[in-house]
Amino acid sequence: MHHQEALTAYIAAFVQELVFSGITDVVVSPGSRSTPMAMVMAEHPNLNLHIHVDERSAAFFALGMAKATNRPTAILCTSGTAAANYFPAIVEARYSRVPLIVLTADRPHELRDVGAPQAIDQIHLYGQHVKWFSEMALPEKNHDTIRYARTVCARAAAIAIQAPAGPVHLNFPFREPLIPLLDDSLFELTERPTGYVQVHNGDLTINDDTIKEIAKILKDCKKGIIVCGNIEDSGFANAVTNLAAVLNFPILADPLSQLRSGKHSNEYIIETYDTFLRNEDAKSILKPDVVLRFGAMPVSKALTVFLKENHEADQYVIDSGGGWRDPSALTTNMIFCDETLFCENLLNFIEKQSSSGFMDDWKNINKLTKEKMLLIKNSTDLSESKLFSQISEMLPEGATLFVGNSMPIRDLDSFFINNNKSIKVMANRGANGIDGTISTALGAAIYSKQMYLVLGDLTFFHDLNGLLAAKLYDIDIHIILINNNGGGIFSFLPQSEYQKNYELLFGTPLDLDFEHVVRMYNGRFTRITNWAHIADLMNRSADLNGLNVYEIVTRRDRNLEEHREFWSMVSLEISNFVKGTRR
Amino acid sequence: MHHQEALTAYIAAFVQELVFSGITDVVVSPGSRSTPMAMVMAEHPNLNLHIHVDERSAAFFALGMAKATNRPTAILCTSGTAAANYFPAIVEARYSRVPLIVLTADRPHELRDVGAPQAIDQIHLYGQHVKWFSEMALPEKNHDTIRYARTVCARAAAIAIQAPAGPVHLNFPFREPLIPLLDDSLFELTERPTGYVQVHNGDLTINDDTIKEIAKILKDCKKGIIVCGNIEDSGFANAVTNLAAVLNFPILADPLSQLRSGKHSNEYIIETYDTFLRNEDAKSILKPDVVLRFGAMPVSKALTVFLKENHEADQYVIDSGGGWRDPSALTTNMIFCDETLFCENLLNFIEKQSSSGFMDDWKNINKLTKEKMLLIKNSTDLSESKLFSQISEMLPEGATLFVGNSMPIRDLDSFFINNNKSIKVMANRGANGIDGTISTALGAAIYSKQMYLVLGDLTFFHDLNGLLAAKLYDIDIHIILINNNGGGIFSFLPQSEYQKNYELLFGTPLDLDFEHVVRMYNGRFTRITNWAHIADLMNRSADLNGLNVYEIVTRRDRNLEEHREFWSMVSLEISNFVKGTRR
Repeated sequence: MHHQEALTAYIAAFVQELVFSGITDVVVSPGSRSTPMAMVMAEHPNLNLHIHVDERSAAFFALGMAKATNRPTAILCTSGTAAANYFPAIVEARYSRVPLIVLTADRPHELRDVGAPQAIDQIHLYGQHVKWFSEMALPEKNHDTIRYARTVCARAAAIAIQAPAGPVHLNFPFREPLIPLLDDSLFELTERPTGYVQVHNGDLTINDDTIKEIAKILKDCKKGIIVCGNIEDSGFANAVTNLAAVLNFPILADPLSQLRSGKHSNEYIIETYDTFLRNEDAKSILKPDVVLRFGAMPVSKALTVFLKENHEADQYVIDSGGGWRDPSALTTNMIFCDETLFCENLLNFIEKQSSSGFMDDWKNINKLTKEKMLLIKNSTDLSESKLFSQISEMLPEGATLFVGNSMPIRDLDSFFINNNKSIKVMANRGANGIDGTISTALGAAIYSKQMYLVLGDLTFFHDLNGLLAAKLYDIDIHIILINNNGGGIFSFLPQSEYQKNYELLFGTPLDLDFEHVVRMYNGRFTRITNWAHIADLMNRSADLNGLNVYEIVTRRDRNLEEHREFWSMVSLEISNFVKGTRR
Repeated sequence: MHHQEALTAYIAAFVQELVFSGITDVVVSPGSRSTPMAMVMAEHPNLNLHIHVDERSAAFFALGMAKATNRPTAILCTSGTAAANYFPAIVEARYSRVPLIVLTADRPHELRDVGAPQAIDQIHLYGQHVKWFSEMALPEKNHDTIRYARTVCARAAAIAIQAPAGPVHLNFPFREPLIPLLDDSLFELTERPTGYVQVHNGDLTINDDTIKEIAKILKDCKKGIIVCGNIEDSGFANAVTNLAAVLNFPILADPLSQLRSGKHSNEYIIETYDTFLRNEDAKSILKPDVVLRFGAMPVSKALTVFLKENHEADQYVIDSGGGWRDPSALTTNMIFCDETLFCENLLNFIEKQSSSGFMDDWKNINKLTKEKMLLIKNSTDLSESKLFSQISEMLPEGATLFVGNSMPIRDLDSFFINNNKSIKVMANRGANGIDGTISTALGAAIYSKQMYLVLGDLTFFHDLNGLLAAKLYDIDIHIILINNNGGGIFSFLPQSEYQKNYELLFGTPLDLDFEHVVRMYNGRFTRITNWAHIADLMNRSADLNGLNVYEIVTRRDRNLEEHREFWSMVSLEISNFVKGTRR
């Protein structure tokens, strides 16, 4: 009884502190060793428990909730390979800076490395991919141990959200018997009953002298550009668009910058650069002297190449997370500072600059490219590019658009046009995997009312198990499944020129009729026949609950042709335009 | 061109050496960074390539092939979370001592930790869970580098099979362009054209003086028992049964010891101990003075408890892998020696001992328990215990029986009776996970002609993606799916007495009709209606190709009752018998 009392007091204090630290959701995978933690968590009135049998999907599901809320989500599993299944989502959380609290139950010390069942070495199980690891003490019931459990909990939550946010891992050894003593006073704490320690995470700022110096350089610069990758700070859109307005700098806005949609000014937003930066004439007149870069590396390869070709430009990288996002070694000034504060502070020292021909060139070429996109929009083919060129119109106000990796995120980058709807765009761009996408979107859907997920068939296949959550929790989601029966992105890579073994190694057609599995999860499955069909379904989508899958069957070879035709047509127009401008 | 020449020569030398080192199979998951290795591998005439999109299933599929052949299987994937998905199978390989060669493609050094796409920290990615990690040099074409690549390859293969066998990890940084130069002379090697280095892995042996000492002790012992857990050495069955015969020791044979089936003598084999060691009267007359233990820890909890209660017995643990399999700290003599050699050497120093009442007690109680099992066999209920009590009769000669974790392996332990068929029994008992079971069985099926997999619904669900291999490669497999709609094992654990939240946290019913997903993979799905039905299907199973799933719907509550009724009935009989013996 003494053992169970200690077990219960220790865990209850930990769980209560978890709630005090702002954690509202935990995803639990069933198991035996984790029994005391799971049973105590289930008793807490302010903790939402989600059960997921497949730990890989469970961790991505938690990742989705954390992405949508910017709050840490907790995950709990038993000992053994269960914990190893968390690894892909933990890696993604680490690189995409999403807070996760990973709780693994473990055998106690005397049952480790001695052949006991379901016992693996869980110490530093995730290596460098968590921000913090702590092997927890065995449960005891005394003031010091309870204080310890509560501070470790508060600390773990704080570290998880500290910029750069990321996963933390606590490993709990539990001895049998594993049953806690549950009663009404479970979560009553004798000390500091409303929270043991509040952690105030500071933001990185740089001093005014440095800001003034940068302001001076920027004011003198006539050919500056701003590049924005994935960034989540809600104040950033206004801050950076205000800065662009006074500087007269174009903003090259990645789809994940959250700048292509929304109520902020879009006057300076350039969004079709992935297309026009494939053209040498455009690149020759758009060369920047200064680059201000915010957020993660942009999706666009054409932009990456363009920046690399302009390595003589001064490049300022502003990173609130103190990372080193600079794969081409271009940065001249690495500025570890909150991005929104940086923009706002800079505005204090810069007055509105006069308009520039350079800004006009960016705007004109962007406009021209958008006009040519109408040809895609007016096509009747069920093409991947057309889907993304009209998706902002198909989605309702307030929607969340989650996009799969490989081709969908690239097509979104190419064809997702500025709009003033409130559309939140999400993707797993930490490590760019095709794993866990369904689960992440479903997790995000818990906290984002209208969730639309667009992904390819391999990505859909990879996380089929994730669909279980939609069924178990009646989550509303609309999945647009682009089924080109295999790996479409490889058609754009050099290996596609080597036909021998190409389909075996890269094309990898699965030949699956996904209707079967969607039915298993009680979903509606619709094979789209034409654009009017999907437009109609999207119009009615707000009224459709549960799991809805809309399959658009496309062809990999035709898709490649369409992209190439579009790029060469735009390129021709841009070259003509540039030559006309110069004349 | 120089780059591509170096890339090609380096990788081709590595792949050729892989084949020289005895590797016949590689499981490749599609990706970009791994392109040069995948394209070269596909050219090799003596390497079987298996493609699997889901890396988690891919790694378990490779594990299955390695388990079936005792040869290392290679796996190859691209950079990023792809590699993280290998983790569960790597952990299982580590603890179940299965050789795997894990090949991950990586970004080169200048693209690491700088925000480059799909780049994660892959150095020591699997931590302590691989036997060896090596970060490979960048490809170069010169004698020293080619020698280096070939020796690392041979060494990796040797370490993987060195006892205890396990996974090794080589991480390959590759620069673009990633296309190798393929021609007819790809695998021609100028130096040592039939293999760079042969590694001769020794076996652990102990000297004759020590063997003689042990022989002396065993000869004087009237109450000795032999315990055999999972062991794969093909010569072991004869060696240990010969030893038991001269010593007059019962062999408590775990289902994974490969001793319950086969052509060796089964005179000394005791197989129903998991049932009768729950009875105190039996335990009181069966107390051993000496325990000889071989192989992994046995499945049976009753046996574990029995051994722990007899901690005063001298316990000799013989382990060819030099591990420390002793969760109850009972071992008095840890003997790091090949198990078969140990038995054979010991036989040189022991003559046949006279029969003993102790041996008779074990045999009699075992016989009594088996007789009572007839009641289960004669029942008409579609019960889990009945399935396992008759499974050896249902399977054809030469079959492989792969068993899922949680309840199936325990029921197999309880009810799988001695037989003289050649039935190989397999399970993932390194870390006892419910993950990857379908894939492991399918991988094993590549090298085991008649594969029968018995598993529960949660285990089936966890690796549904694994079924893709059956479809893509037309693998023949018969899956008996015990569907009790949730986690049946928890009914036997203390948490089942706490009904509040029980179904939420532990029962976890999925309510899935698996027929849908089996159809998606072109499988036959049959819901079993009665025992004649499945007996008939099993009779015809040898003629059925492809994926066949036979679902037996059972009830978790009824299953618990049946087990309890059986145990208490046997217990009563045994107590009567023991009291009768004593009288």
